Amino acid sequence: MTTLNTTVEVNVKEQAKQAQKASKKLSLLTTEEKNEALNIIADVLEKETDYILQENNKDLERGKEKEFTEAFMDRLRLTEDRVKDFANGLREVAQLEDPVGEVLSDWNLDNGMQVEQVRVPLGVIGMIYEARPNVTVDATGLALKSGNAIVLKGGSNALNSNKGIVKVIHSALPKTKIPVDAVQLIATTDRKATSELFTMKEHIDVLIPRGGGALINTVVNNATVPVLETGVGNCHIYFDKAADAKKAINIFINAKTDRPAVCNAAETLIVHKEWLNENKDLLEKSLADNNIKIHGDEHIVNTFKDAVLADEDDWSNEYLGLEIAIKSVESTQEAIDHIETYGTKHSEAIITEDPESASLFRNLVDAAAVYHNASTRFTDGSALGFGAEIGISTQKLHARGPMGLPALTTIKYCMTGTGQIR
Amino acid sequence: MTTLNTTVEVNVKEQAKQAQKASKKLSLLTTEEKNEALNIIADVLEKETDYILQENNKDLERGKEKEFTEAFMDRLRLTEDRVKDFANGLREVAQLEDPVGEVLSDWNLDNGMQVEQVRVPLGVIGMIYEARPNVTVDATGLALKSGNAIVLKGGSNALNSNKGIVKVIHSALPKTKIPVDAVQLIATTDRKATSELFTMKEHIDVLIPRGGGALINTVVNNATVPVLETGVGNCHIYFDKAADAKKAINIFINAKTDRPAVCNAAETLIVHKEWLNENKDLLEKSLADNNIKIHGDEHIVNTFKDAVLADEDDWSNEYLGLEIAIKSVESTQEAIDHIETYGTKHSEAIITEDPESASLFRNLVDAAAVYHNASTRFTDGSALGFGAEIGISTQKLHARGPMGLPALTTIKYCMTGTGQIR
Repeated sequence: MTTLNTTVEVNVKEQAKQAQKASKKLSLLTTEEKNEALNIIADVLEKETDYILQENNKDLERGKEKEFTEAFMDRLRLTEDRVKDFANGLREVAQLEDPVGEVLSDWNLDNGMQVEQVRVPLGVIGMIYEARPNVTVDATGLALKSGNAIVLKGGSNALNSNKGIVKVIHSALPKTKIPVDAVQLIATTDRKATSELFTMKEHIDVLIPRGGGALINTVVNNATVPVLETGVGNCHIYFDKAADAKKAINIFINAKTDRPAVCNAAETLIVHKEWLNENKDLLEKSLADNNIKIHGDEHIVNTFKDAVLADEDDWSNEYLGLEIAIKSVESTQEAIDHIETYGTKHSEAIITEDPESASLFRNLVDAAAVYHNASTRFTDGSALGFGAEIGISTQKLHARGPMGLPALTTIKYCMTGTGQIR
Repeated sequence: MTTLNTTVEVNVKEQAKQAQKASKKLSLLTTEEKNEALNIIADVLEKETDYILQENNKDLERGKEKEFTEAFMDRLRLTEDRVKDFANGLREVAQLEDPVGEVLSDWNLDNGMQVEQVRVPLGVIGMIYEARPNVTVDATGLALKSGNAIVLKGGSNALNSNKGIVKVIHSALPKTKIPVDAVQLIATTDRKATSELFTMKEHIDVLIPRGGGALINTVVNNATVPVLETGVGNCHIYFDKAADAKKAINIFINAKTDRPAVCNAAETLIVHKEWLNENKDLLEKSLADNNIKIHGDEHIVNTFKDAVLADEDDWSNEYLGLEIAIKSVESTQEAIDHIETYGTKHSEAIITEDPESASLFRNLVDAAAVYHNASTRFTDGSALGFGAEIGISTQKLHARGPMGLPALTTIKYCMTGTGQIR
């Protein structure tokens, strides 16, 4: 990697300013120019796999010394396949429709003035994330395709990996129409650098935190820059009185065990007591077969021999593993109330053959995605057909649910007149 | 007004909770039920005009004692006509299309699961505003029509007026399907009550500040609840080298003088030096005829005999009166750069007969509305045909420019399956 001479400085404000300046040029590029650039970056990343793995290895060595968990090391680890994956991810983003320039609506006023509502890039995206170095590439690809510059602040434990990846991207950009300054890495382990981003309203248009609840809360509570909040998912599945037992258990086991560590996995099962009365044995066997540990309310503890009493933590937090909290209720409304208290507005499901119950649940549950007789696992950009996603929004403003490229744009009213006055 | 027995308590959290509870019921109402309610509220407000004016008079008396400016007193003052106006405003909102329930898109996955992206209310809107008591009615109407509960915190100096208006609304609501708790007034002059709203994420879905820059900044800088930022407008009009002189001056005088105190009025004029060279006399005469005081850069001060040298304040802030800052430039890019430095991303105009200049300006100026050969005064919900507006957004997320009813909604993904798993 001898051709790389880009040095990454840590002057957060200066970097954000450079990104903003670059974003102006970037906003004028054609779709073809952006797509070509993404394909070139993908090729160069693949070509520099050895260099990237070598830099990643520094982080892995340090991680071993620090005795990080295997789960953490797995998130941190890059392999030849993973590099190929994120390079291919860029190629897929190049295939996606370009949201920029879309005229969402246009009309003429009576006085003849023409009004166009046009989709334009947000400008500069600040991405704050944790251990996964692939986010560096994924987020960069989505930002550039939607005409935005990006300021990256990854986790300290992945610093060498991220520096390596961004060096490679910077080496590719001069072969494209995208200015090198459009991709900025805040290459430091100093937490102050992150908090500087929080208030840099003049130069950063949106912050996107991706990671655990603590990271997200820190950003939301301290940022004056607008935030796109991505999701902690304390997701519930409710077995209504009229739930088909086989369907219900099948959906629940899928939502719990398919990928327990992701945000759209089920974390609490709410069961109607009448349903439970009839189907207790079937449910108990399925949970046991799947090695799912049960926490529950008193009624559940009295019903299942292996259940332990749940506390506030069990209701409030994600297990992200093979454990479940079970709440017994006597009505759909009680289930809805429990979700209102403990849910994180991500994905919630009702399993029922009763359309009235389904309708009540759909209307009153306040979440990005509400399911009737399907697994919560479908709350995902690629599962829904959006292509790549920048995250899953659990907030209500701007974008809700899986966020594809349009979430990285805003609109501009473009007015064309011949001298109209009011 | 002897029939009124609703007391307004000041327990902010309790009020927000009540609003949230009411919002659930409100979200289930039909368009007809909401429209009928708005018409009933309008009738009762008109019927209780005397009571409302009597309460308003208490604020006016106090304002006189405190020697508020006439402009301030005018914003505070209600009259029979103004009560009729806001009652009619509610009737107009009843006529607007209901955004709630609109299916924005729907599709089926290959596995048969149905996906619907449905428009739903935000939930609870927190409205923080200053002296104008009519905002109490306008904001309530827009919130209720879009299925949202509202928590109102008006300016201390309008407290009696707002209490009076909300008492009347509360007396009308029992005749409608809308729960009384859906409209909450934080009836106190204690500033702590306002800051309590800033962090009440669990019960308030969005804060909308309406008023001067200081109020808006306080909310933006201190709120963890998402904010819809409404607009300070430091709007520029740029006379390009190729501007038609008559058109240019006509547009500028309209944008400056039609209503100088509003946010879409022009505050800075940027002129190309070559244009100025040719049209100096015409411009000077028009400004003088309209009693517009000139601040300007050195070139302007040397050109116009009555101009005084502009400082940073002149470039940065709104005059909201018959004054103007004039900046001379040598290129469209220089004009764009000036706007980038001092603009507030509200409304910006270029006057030119050169399509290339117009296109550069349109693409590079970062604002909610960009005009070519028309007055900035059209950035307004009613001028653009949206009906009533809750404010003009100068932020990029969620809503940009004039915000009508759809800005008060979010989306929900509603999935219907037959047992689909991933």
